[in-house]
Amino acid sequence: MARAQIEPRTLRGFADTFPEVAVHRRRMVAAIEDTFSSFGYDPIQTPALEYAEVLRGKGGDESDKQMFEFDDQGGRRVAMRFDLTVPLARFVAGHQGRLTFPFRGYNVGYVWRGERPQRGRYREFLQCDADIVGDTGVTADAEILCMIQATLAAMDVGPVTIRVNDRRVLNGLLADLDLADRGPAVLRALDKLEKVGEDAVRAELAGVGVSDDAAGRVLAMAAARQAHNADTLAAVDEIVGNGVEGKAGHRALAELLEMLQASGADMTAVRLDPAIARGLDYYTGMVYETTLAAAPEVGSISSGGRYDDLAGLFTSSRLPGVGGSIGVSRILAALEGTERLAAHGRPRPLVVITHGDEAERTALVRLADRLRRTGRFDVEVYPTPRKHAAQMKYADGRAAAYVLTLDGEDRVSVKDMASGARTAYALAAVAEELGRP
Amino acid sequence: MARAQIEPRTLRGFADTFPEVAVHRRRMVAAIEDTFSSFGYDPIQTPALEYAEVLRGKGGDESDKQMFEFDDQGGRRVAMRFDLTVPLARFVAGHQGRLTFPFRGYNVGYVWRGERPQRGRYREFLQCDADIVGDTGVTADAEILCMIQATLAAMDVGPVTIRVNDRRVLNGLLADLDLADRGPAVLRALDKLEKVGEDAVRAELAGVGVSDDAAGRVLAMAAARQAHNADTLAAVDEIVGNGVEGKAGHRALAELLEMLQASGADMTAVRLDPAIARGLDYYTGMVYETTLAAAPEVGSISSGGRYDDLAGLFTSSRLPGVGGSIGVSRILAALEGTERLAAHGRPRPLVVITHGDEAERTALVRLADRLRRTGRFDVEVYPTPRKHAAQMKYADGRAAAYVLTLDGEDRVSVKDMASGARTAYALAAVAEELGRP
Repeated sequence: MARAQIEPRTLRGFADTFPEVAVHRRRMVAAIEDTFSSFGYDPIQTPALEYAEVLRGKGGDESDKQMFEFDDQGGRRVAMRFDLTVPLARFVAGHQGRLTFPFRGYNVGYVWRGERPQRGRYREFLQCDADIVGDTGVTADAEILCMIQATLAAMDVGPVTIRVNDRRVLNGLLADLDLADRGPAVLRALDKLEKVGEDAVRAELAGVGVSDDAAGRVLAMAAARQAHNADTLAAVDEIVGNGVEGKAGHRALAELLEMLQASGADMTAVRLDPAIARGLDYYTGMVYETTLAAAPEVGSISSGGRYDDLAGLFTSSRLPGVGGSIGVSRILAALEGTERLAAHGRPRPLVVITHGDEAERTALVRLADRLRRTGRFDVEVYPTPRKHAAQMKYADGRAAAYVLTLDGEDRVSVKDMASGARTAYALAAVAEELGRP
Repeated sequence: MARAQIEPRTLRGFADTFPEVAVHRRRMVAAIEDTFSSFGYDPIQTPALEYAEVLRGKGGDESDKQMFEFDDQGGRRVAMRFDLTVPLARFVAGHQGRLTFPFRGYNVGYVWRGERPQRGRYREFLQCDADIVGDTGVTADAEILCMIQATLAAMDVGPVTIRVNDRRVLNGLLADLDLADRGPAVLRALDKLEKVGEDAVRAELAGVGVSDDAAGRVLAMAAARQAHNADTLAAVDEIVGNGVEGKAGHRALAELLEMLQASGADMTAVRLDPAIARGLDYYTGMVYETTLAAAPEVGSISSGGRYDDLAGLFTSSRLPGVGGSIGVSRILAALEGTERLAAHGRPRPLVVITHGDEAERTALVRLADRLRRTGRFDVEVYPTPRKHAAQMKYADGRAAAYVLTLDGEDRVSVKDMASGARTAYALAAVAEELGRP
């Protein structure tokens, strides 16, 4: 009986991952977890689905609109997480009594946003967040930046620029201009500077009642970035004037640079940039974002900052902290098909064992087992007898390093696929011979 | 201004994971990925959300009812995956031209089912599936079982029993009894044998029109398991009679045992068991399930089997294959709090560097950086100055191996937390001294 067939399609913005990319995702996540652990960060995990009220209203209107939200079988209003920050806030608030503070934790997981798909932006993407909660010092700020830099290096994403600012620098200026109440709107406008240009930002600022003169000072601040961090710092000092908050921001940036230097950070990749605002309202101190030198157009591949009160919506305890997030899916999209990915080969060479006829099969699996037990090879047995040429073609497509073929009862012919050379070994000795360093 | 607070709760059946369990999940997934790779299986990844029509009707009514399904922002009917088998079928059907067959792939991901939560069963759980698609031979069947056994060993889950059967053994008997049309219903009833007992299964079989005599023969088959696989095999041979299908099933099981033995499998953990049916309709040959010796009550921690036609709903190409699935969440639930997990310590010892006063902080982060660069330690700096006793208590709670405290400008006091011994080192030498093997 013929069945009606369903088209095997995926949803827009949701992509299948093929092995050639999935192996790099696996490698990068391992590098992230290893580096985070080396800084004392422990893994936690929160669910993909939460009560909608837990997630709503935390990332602004845009996030709410993009959230995958629905009624579950029990009539509960639920939503798929759109970031890992809100779940962390819920986690820390809900388990305060069980956690040791300062709490260093990381969370690796997919998040979902129904936004318009474009290059490097999917509706499902993998994020890795690390946070230190329960501390207010600059040591923690520097630690996050230093760890993010070390992590991106371990992932081998190539040269990056980490652009750093402090929210208080801009807030101080806004206070000076009597615009403190319009802070979030101004920050949102400023966040688009690189994308839309100065005129469009001026127009948006005018729209929220910022005078032309005030807009000029805000834009001057954003443009204060110099080639050297020391010069930027001096320019910031001048622009913030004598307000308490601006001064505090300036001092924090100076201390941050000093701590980064001491921490062994690569200072050539760190740039003070007063234009960095990070639109989200909950940041209160250091903020940063990161671009790939090879693909700045995909946007920030890692960003974050300091918050005074992470979990205020869930608890009356004040939980300050600082964190960073790495966008693994976006990095993979930017690097897909490049030499940089291709340079990472299979950790162990692949051996394909051909299958001549059924009578061989126990000998073949025995050989495969012996080779695997050396710990030096990935080993496949071609599962069913087939023409030798077809199996060689298969091995070629698999980028096998060696192809082994039984030659009588106790001999094995080994083809080195790189050189094309064939060598014969005794069956009993081949695992040891090939496994020799 | 006081804000209304939202209770930081999670949904029923959706659990947060704390570091003490999350580290083991991370370790186990790494062991799975490493072992799968050593058999030549490559990672793929499919989305969490699919068109509902892609997922519906594939796992039976029960799965459909448990599916988290809703309309997305674009009015598409979508659903969260409830297993990794249907997405694999869709993946292979949709990308046939791009894949090399036989295709060995694995997929690690969360799946969601709105079932009643109970011990070891959540509504969100992590599965790892491996399949070889495009082959029909017993070598592939044995490979999956052998790989699953090697993987569970690498995960260190403790002793397991892998119970194996072949669908054709039961199908052959059903054909003999003229019950071929009631196969799925009989299999479903039989699947519950261990849980509900013989009488309840007899009643369910009567309900689908199976005579008492026929039910007796079905149950005799299911009870044919002996202490030794050779004896079970002989009993099966007798019961299946002379039908073609039953004979084929019997022969396949005999060959499977022979291949497992040759593959280096631990045969003491493999048991032929004619009662194993695996309720899902798509299995056509070998079927298996696996129980933990330490916690058989949590149910099967790994199961799978052979299918003739994986992707028939998506393509007219016939794609036979065989696969297995490992239930990581269920394994963790079974082992949580046991010595077996506790035996796996932190891969690198943890060093906590205390923070005496602000003037020290650049020296502290410099020291941390040097220690980390040895590659032998996870290193934390206590981020803010605090009373020494409070920092020692923190280090204790973190199960630190060493606590380092600056002692003047160029000395470090090292406390070995296991022995309680304190040793003083020159600041410049401590990384090298502690890093010495």
